[in-house]
Amino acid sequence: MAKFKRLLITGASGMLGGELRKRLTDVADVVRLSGRRDVGALQAHEEQMTCDLADMDAVMELTRDVDAVVHLGGVSSENTFESIMQSNILGFYNLYEGCRKNGVKRVTWASSVHAIGFYPTTQVLDTDVPLRPDSNYGVSKAFGEALAQYYWDKYALESVSVRIYSSFPKPADRRHLNTYLSFDDCAECFRRSLLAPVVGHTVIYGVSDNTVKLVDNRKSAHIGFRPKDSSEPFRAELEASTPEPSIDDKFISTHGGGFASAGHFED
Amino acid sequence: MAKFKRLLITGASGMLGGELRKRLTDVADVVRLSGRRDVGALQAHEEQMTCDLADMDAVMELTRDVDAVVHLGGVSSENTFESIMQSNILGFYNLYEGCRKNGVKRVTWASSVHAIGFYPTTQVLDTDVPLRPDSNYGVSKAFGEALAQYYWDKYALESVSVRIYSSFPKPADRRHLNTYLSFDDCAECFRRSLLAPVVGHTVIYGVSDNTVKLVDNRKSAHIGFRPKDSSEPFRAELEASTPEPSIDDKFISTHGGGFASAGHFED
Amino acid sequence: MAKFKRLLITGASGMLGGELRKRLTDVADVVRLSGRRDVGALQAHEEQMTCDLADMDAVMELTRDVDAVVHLGGVSSENTFESIMQSNILGFYNLYEGCRKNGVKRVTWASSVHAIGFYPTTQVLDTDVPLRPDSNYGVSKAFGEALAQYYWDKYALESVSVRIYSSFPKPADRRHLNTYLSFDDCAECFRRSLLAPVVGHTVIYGVSDNTVKLVDNRKSAHIGFRPKDSSEPFRAELEASTPEPSIDDKFISTHGGGFASAGHFED
Amino acid sequence: MAKFKRLLITGASGMLGGELRKRLTDVADVVRLSGRRDVGALQAHEEQMTCDLADMDAVMELTRDVDAVVHLGGVSSENTFESIMQSNILGFYNLYEGCRKNGVKRVTWASSVHAIGFYPTTQVLDTDVPLRPDSNYGVSKAFGEALAQYYWDKYALESVSVRIYSSFPKPADRRHLNTYLSFDDCAECFRRSLLAPVVGHTVIYGVSDNTVKLVDNRKSAHIGFRPKDSSEPFRAELEASTPEPSIDDKFISTHGGGFASAGHFED
Amino acid sequence: MAKFKRLLITGASGMLGGELRKRLTDVADVVRLSGRRDVGALQAHEEQMTCDLADMDAVMELTRDVDAVVHLGGVSSENTFESIMQSNILGFYNLYEGCRKNGVKRVTWASSVHAIGFYPTTQVLDTDVPLRPDSNYGVSKAFGEALAQYYWDKYALESVSVRIYSSFPKPADRRHLNTYLSFDDCAECFRRSLLAPVVGHTVIYGVSDNTVKLVDNRKSAHIGFRPKDSSEPFRAELEASTPEPSIDDKFISTHGGGFASAGHFED
Amino acid sequence: MAKFKRLLITGASGMLGGELRKRLTDVADVVRLSGRRDVGALQAHEEQMTCDLADMDAVMELTRDVDAVVHLGGVSSENTFESIMQSNILGFYNLYEGCRKNGVKRVTWASSVHAIGFYPTTQVLDTDVPLRPDSNYGVSKAFGEALAQYYWDKYALESVSVRIYSSFPKPADRRHLNTYLSFDDCAECFRRSLLAPVVGHTVIYGVSDNTVKLVDNRKSAHIGFRPKDSSEPFRAELEASTPEPSIDDKFISTHGGGFASAGHFED
Repeated sequence: MAKFKRLLITGASGMLGGELRKRLTDVADVVRLSGRRDVGALQAHEEQMTCDLADMDAVMELTRDVDAVVHLGGVSSENTFESIMQSNILGFYNLYEGCRKNGVKRVTWASSVHAIGFYPTTQVLDTDVPLRPDSNYGVSKAFGEALAQYYWDKYALESVSVRIYSSFPKPADRRHLNTYLSFDDCAECFRRSLLAPVVGHTVIYGVSDNTVKLVDNRKSAHIGFRPKDSSEPFRAELEASTPEPSIDDKFISTHGGGFASAGHFED
Repeated sequence: MAKFKRLLITGASGMLGGELRKRLTDVADVVRLSGRRDVGALQAHEEQMTCDLADMDAVMELTRDVDAVVHLGGVSSENTFESIMQSNILGFYNLYEGCRKNGVKRVTWASSVHAIGFYPTTQVLDTDVPLRPDSNYGVSKAFGEALAQYYWDKYALESVSVRIYSSFPKPADRRHLNTYLSFDDCAECFRRSLLAPVVGHTVIYGVSDNTVKLVDNRKSAHIGFRPKDSSEPFRAELEASTPEPSIDDKFISTHGGGFASAGHFED
Repeated sequence: MAKFKRLLITGASGMLGGELRKRLTDVADVVRLSGRRDVGALQAHEEQMTCDLADMDAVMELTRDVDAVVHLGGVSSENTFESIMQSNILGFYNLYEGCRKNGVKRVTWASSVHAIGFYPTTQVLDTDVPLRPDSNYGVSKAFGEALAQYYWDKYALESVSVRIYSSFPKPADRRHLNTYLSFDDCAECFRRSLLAPVVGHTVIYGVSDNTVKLVDNRKSAHIGFRPKDSSEPFRAELEASTPEPSIDDKFISTHGGGFASAGHFED
Repeated sequence: MAKFKRLLITGASGMLGGELRKRLTDVADVVRLSGRRDVGALQAHEEQMTCDLADMDAVMELTRDVDAVVHLGGVSSENTFESIMQSNILGFYNLYEGCRKNGVKRVTWASSVHAIGFYPTTQVLDTDVPLRPDSNYGVSKAFGEALAQYYWDKYALESVSVRIYSSFPKPADRRHLNTYLSFDDCAECFRRSLLAPVVGHTVIYGVSDNTVKLVDNRKSAHIGFRPKDSSEPFRAELEASTPEPSIDDKFISTHGGGFASAGHFED
Repeated sequence: MAKFKRLLITGASGMLGGELRKRLTDVADVVRLSGRRDVGALQAHEEQMTCDLADMDAVMELTRDVDAVVHLGGVSSENTFESIMQSNILGFYNLYEGCRKNGVKRVTWASSVHAIGFYPTTQVLDTDVPLRPDSNYGVSKAFGEALAQYYWDKYALESVSVRIYSSFPKPADRRHLNTYLSFDDCAECFRRSLLAPVVGHTVIYGVSDNTVKLVDNRKSAHIGFRPKDSSEPFRAELEASTPEPSIDDKFISTHGGGFASAGHFED
Repeated sequence: MAKFKRLLITGASGMLGGELRKRLTDVADVVRLSGRRDVGALQAHEEQMTCDLADMDAVMELTRDVDAVVHLGGVSSENTFESIMQSNILGFYNLYEGCRKNGVKRVTWASSVHAIGFYPTTQVLDTDVPLRPDSNYGVSKAFGEALAQYYWDKYALESVSVRIYSSFPKPADRRHLNTYLSFDDCAECFRRSLLAPVVGHTVIYGVSDNTVKLVDNRKSAHIGFRPKDSSEPFRAELEASTPEPSIDDKFISTHGGGFASAGHFED
């Protein structure tokens, strides 16, 4: 018997949702999938539900009979503030309200490196540095972490905020050599976040065991996440095919990379 | 000649706005006042403008030709998330966008104890503790501090986030003995925040020099704020007229007081 | 009406007990005094009771109907381990058991510099440095602080452990210039410890506002203790009448002074 | 030639004593065993001596010609204060006095998780957090650590205080998945504590390399202890046979587990 | 009788030397003055000696029969590396060698803000931040602090390294409003550094009690330095007569001011 | 294509230079070798140049067309101050000036355990502890780290200061069991320091993965150095052939070992 009866995965039609869905098969008896697009064929233990997170009534349905959540839904990159506010602020609030009212026990969700993206890469970050978001998107993740803390302190709803770095099939540029998170390691980070006996509200970095290490998960060791993969096998090819960035390029000199170095999104 | 040509005070028709308006007469040649209600008779150096912060175009007008801002506007207590989102999240974002586009140099604004309201009062807080909001309102202040940090890191727009404790004519309950901020000290905190030579994004606590001290502004000493007042003269009367709260009552055992101890706002 | 109905002062026949008894007249309606010797004439608000703290039954009587305690009793200097164990370990345990069973709300007590006496005087100590006792006596104070913490965590019995430095009528040697605690400041430290709204288990240093400052009470600012006196008026006389100690003499180079520099007590 | 001529193991007739005795065969030429019960057949390098630690004269005999100590004796679980005081306070003091007078060089001893048992399991502890004992037993361990520090500072007698978590043949409940210390790892921790070139007074956590990690031995890396075992092989069986504890059950939400959640021992 | 028999003041013909000489009349019976230029008429307790610090033999003479030193000599501003090396590195080494061989007890000396000049003024510095010099001059002060630490650790020669900010007759520019050290406060800082009972090697900031506070002497409170003066009386005039600097001008945005913002000295 | 076109290795005729030269063949297309003695036969990718670092003109030639530096030259052990000043202070300054003027991008260099040699071995050091040099040599390394920081802050010339412990063919004494740095690990530390994308000025400890661990490179994890070797294989032989040192012998009780325990070099 799994720890949870029903796990909700939001954003299940996205890339990361699809990968985690395949790997998180042992933490709940039933997995409910929701996403903006079709989630494809269902396995025996899966069910599906569509939901606009900005619609509170729909969210109440979505979170009914749910024990735990992997929340990957919402806008997943920089965008207009209006768009991000609807998905990642109002939608996020609705999700927590639904969870609270429906008695969900634990939410694990995709926070992001972009919540602390303006720190220089010469600073190895532990999990309680003050936030330095690098974008509207990053600010919405800062909002999310504050809300998750609030629901723990006030309502004893547990959360793990996973600050995902670069979770892709493989490292796609030189920065990813330092920030890569393999899908296996990503799934393991969420699995441990769900299975750890007590989490309160814990922040943890989601990065693989790359040679260059920009983060320090020491204060989250109670989660039990130990990454197994590394960007190293991809190094030679990436270094051969891409130019060395200048050290004053924020792309390589900040945790947030392209977000910190980009111009204003909406101009 | 004052440091700034034009200072904008939002929330000028509120209690705190009215008090600060009277006291911040030496930091700018012209003071622009905006508020939800009429701001009353204008002094020679004052001008007035009404503005709905949720209206971006109006905010562009409001912040035109402004050098510095004292932002007190928005919802100032716990409320529905929808209401708070419109005022303190969308409205706050609009204000910063207006400031950025209009070249405003510095924003000082009313963050709140409620951004860190769930800390116990046995813990003296310095200015870089992780946030622990106690309400929708407190979460909106956490959002605001993250946005202020972002606009500094990305756009070199300076901010001081003043975590105001209890700014009232006089302490109104026993908790206020520990959290009182006199209007004079409040104004001095904003004045120093405006006049300090360089602030980047600085967080500072706004509390008078009360006997019981719950905060530590050591890391913000570059602002130069030294409170002069104390709740002590009000102690005897308050203790005579109010019962001793129990130490397990969050009203007295947390920084946030009533917010941390209240039930859910919207239920 | 005072905050407490009945305050128990132990060690009331000792020097410090006599001084505090005269000064702590406003925190309780009735003050119960206990001591090894006669406590002298009683004031109207005072009552007296003799008690051997090593006798659990007697301690139950002593703490009955008591709301708060100022515990100064026990062995107050270095002694044989056996003697210290009876008074400061068994007696201290009995006192806490009596307080727990009788529903006492708060204990404030004389811990000591000798709990951290082996730190060098070039290190300014805050209140959460690991303990470094300098004597059997200091070890018994370390025991006491651990027990006070335990009764808070387990039974919600509040305590303030006051690490008293040198509380004498006036500084008696050159070390006291750095460690002097006037009786007025000592009483004020206990008063604030009793009156502070919430204390959990708080450790605080009891030292006057001397020029040379060896401790940092920053993390105990919620107690509200601000010393008013200083050893400075006694400096000239003391320096004229005593030789400059060598910097490698533990008497002057450690917090604990003579205790740290003494030979083994029982040899 | 081993590092020490004679190693004393107290508590040698207990479970842990028996296990360590089998494994610590290479740190001394002769091992002296003492215990409350018979220690069984002796190996060639072993000798045996019975001793009541509360008897100072006997302890002088016990520690004569000894170079180093593994102290496992005393009361090993919660008990009446009187009983714990005789064994773990007076007995412990006698042991240190014996060691001091007989010129023993180093004492390694079984402190306990219960010296810091009231910390929440969401807080990963390093070795200099303030103590938070969870029982009379835990308070006696706090006493022991203070005494060990004192004998180092005053008499240059070295100590390693090993805060043992759950050293059993195998994890016996769900909490042990997080706190398990295999006998091999326990022995290795004591071996390294004995063999490390200089230790002063060092505190170290005794826990195996479990997935969920509640402690951080970073500041004790000079001891050289690296656990090899894990509770992971026992997880499936334990989770199948035991119910998931509630996160507000101190059994799982504090380091000390059952001790922190228990009622008062002596009532 | 003063604490020291003979105090040596180097750099006595400079501005600061002249000011301290007038004020440090009570710490030694005899004051020996040395400087590059004539030191003017001598008081009864004064004697004079000329010395090139780069000449080891001369330094041996200079430090003979000396008990304590106020070292202000050497190059006092940015210069060629060769020049600074001769005065502030070789000369400084010679001074310490002379002191060691002649049994001098304590050296207090003018380190500088320029040893940490590249920190931003939004960071309030305590005394153990890693060094960030802003010039050849600042690097020589970093060297000096390292040497002072070495002579304490190896030879028990005590030192206080006073990181002087801007010690001038009055603040001369807007940066000085934040960095001003009055001559009285400067003298008091050296006096306390000489009179404090034990100092080992202590680093302390020399700044008056200005409104804007860039440093935190908390860890040096055992010196007993409490500044009395402030730049505030000079503010109005300075702000009226000088333009507001831009916040991206290192002159105002770094501790080191002009040094950090200057081009390379020797180009 | 390697990251750098031309790498300069100074001290190439020394033991460590010879070892690194053999191992750092993949970070640059051309390696320029300089040393006091002949560097032996050149490989195809190598070139050689002799240079006295105290001669600025020669250093300008040496650093022309160079992209990165491994600086091992200078005096490599305790010596007269004069000798160390010429090589490690003036020579070091010249090297940085040459690098700055010739546009070198990154310098990695042999700082030393002796910059922090006076810390006790019971203290595990991270990379931002205040310096405590143990010798003239160690003070020159402190100077070097300050200069490296300065050139990064002022001129954006990157540096990695590698605090090398004991880099020898194999551990030669008992202290080396704790401080050994194999040549392979040493080369890997420099390789990672050269290849890491951004380093600013980073301090890192160069020690192998020995059982007893005296340092903590956590804050330098962005370099990506993970040692592979250990002193363990050499333990048995070393312990058999050398006596156990006393714990009060600075040789074993300080990081710096023999340097901290030696008498004054020049007496």
